[in-house]
Amino acid sequence: MTRMLILGGTGETGSWFARYFRDRGFEVSVWGPSGKVEVAERLGVSFARDMMAEVKRSDVVLVSVVIDKTVEMIAKVAPHMKAGSLLMDVTSLKSGPMKAMMDHAPDGVEVLGTHPMFGPSMPALKGQTIILVPGEGRCQRWLPEMREIFESDGARIEVLGSEEHDEMMAVIQALTHFAYIGIGATLKALDVDVEMSRKFMSPVYEIMIDFVGRILDQSPELYASIQENPKAAAVRQTFIEECTRLCQKADARDLEGFKSIMQEAAKHYGRTDQALERSDKLINGRIMDRERQRIDRA
Amino acid sequence: MTRMLILGGTGETGSWFARYFRDRGFEVSVWGPSGKVEVAERLGVSFARDMMAEVKRSDVVLVSVVIDKTVEMIAKVAPHMKAGSLLMDVTSLKSGPMKAMMDHAPDGVEVLGTHPMFGPSMPALKGQTIILVPGEGRCQRWLPEMREIFESDGARIEVLGSEEHDEMMAVIQALTHFAYIGIGATLKALDVDVEMSRKFMSPVYEIMIDFVGRILDQSPELYASIQENPKAAAVRQTFIEECTRLCQKADARDLEGFKSIMQEAAKHYGRTDQALERSDKLINGRIMDRERQRIDRA
Repeated sequence: MTRMLILGGTGETGSWFARYFRDRGFEVSVWGPSGKVEVAERLGVSFARDMMAEVKRSDVVLVSVVIDKTVEMIAKVAPHMKAGSLLMDVTSLKSGPMKAMMDHAPDGVEVLGTHPMFGPSMPALKGQTIILVPGEGRCQRWLPEMREIFESDGARIEVLGSEEHDEMMAVIQALTHFAYIGIGATLKALDVDVEMSRKFMSPVYEIMIDFVGRILDQSPELYASIQENPKAAAVRQTFIEECTRLCQKADARDLEGFKSIMQEAAKHYGRTDQALERSDKLINGRIMDRERQRIDRA
Repeated sequence: MTRMLILGGTGETGSWFARYFRDRGFEVSVWGPSGKVEVAERLGVSFARDMMAEVKRSDVVLVSVVIDKTVEMIAKVAPHMKAGSLLMDVTSLKSGPMKAMMDHAPDGVEVLGTHPMFGPSMPALKGQTIILVPGEGRCQRWLPEMREIFESDGARIEVLGSEEHDEMMAVIQALTHFAYIGIGATLKALDVDVEMSRKFMSPVYEIMIDFVGRILDQSPELYASIQENPKAAAVRQTFIEECTRLCQKADARDLEGFKSIMQEAAKHYGRTDQALERSDKLINGRIMDRERQRIDRA
């Protein structure tokens, strides 16, 4: 039986993976810095009271502590792992944690950076994406094994290098979140009555505002840490520059200038027609949903 | 039988309303500046070759020309409308068109500003929102009549004043679109391969990027005109200021500052937990959809 220790396994993400691997026949134990033994009990796994002893005998150590403690935790446990075992993390950044894992784990220990592209509120893996970043030359045995486990549950697996990963995520995560948090801060600054605005909203706004709320509902630490992606600063800067440029055209009522920014962006984007179709579907689904609720309430 | 003339009825939005009112038993005729008689034929309505003669005998004149010609068109036709008839527009802004309609229509003519919160790609009215802005003291007969027609098809009707309307739409439409177009321009500026990025995307990004594409797919004139909302300039300015403030916190790795912007925005927003739930539903729907497509392709 594969013995897995999840450091930070009493947190939300850690608990998700504890349940996941427990259900796949792993002998899971968890450890968390605040010693929440009751979480382990609820999960039906053991709590590693002697954390370091458990590190030494585990086949897989999965680091799921808060992101700003990740590198520190890796440095502490990695040197004590046994030959043939696997060190994984599940953070949203890859360059930093990968460097730490490669530097601190002994040669015989394999390294697999893991970035689940979903949060712990997702009930199942089916259709979700997981990005795997194998340590160069150091993941022969475990990469295919983990990949098979995740894929057998319907996950989409993508394998990337850590630099590529961070570059991509500076757009996919950091820019998306940044814009939505910026909108949330604007609603506050303008004192917009969000509940009231729902009465008048278009489906496009309604869905946008739900995503703003979604992000604001979750851990600010997580979202702050995603902005610490070394590639994110340039992306934020470009976003503010482009918004400023667009704003200048709108303020000056320069219709041609505004149009040309939109048209160039559309041309670069590619199949905007397919995006329209997909979003129409989403909007219609939302409308049907709202109608059902109205009928239910009546 | 109610005689309705749709000015700009050969355009997309005008055609939508021509079909809509035709199906509800109105005797619809359309006019368009480029004389597309074949569109009228396709719609099964008549083309008003003598536009002004048709204005004089119509019970309802609905102005659906491009937004920057709306006020001009109103000024031209309104004085010739018959007593007891109704003048409507369907633009996304209300202060300007309402003022023009109130100023130019004779006293005996009723005035109803209309803002359908959906585009002509929507197949039906069910669950869609329409905002009605009745001319003050000048919509006794037609407001209840139009309201009943739209509501009988399942539309949600909200009645607002024109100032209130524009203030609300500066957030609901102008801010939403501005942020999405800003993201689109950023993807271009950073030369992000949008198709490739789909492989690695989270559902939050996937849906966001579809809305970016949706907006870029549509008429730049429409989106530029929505930014001309007199209340929009201040909203854009605030958005850029808030993004800049957020960016400064992130650049300085000021975790506490970043967190406090998010937390204040969350507090102001209100029920972020419900937003998380609704967006989870949307995400799960999208995932199921993607899985179905994958199976269909296999």
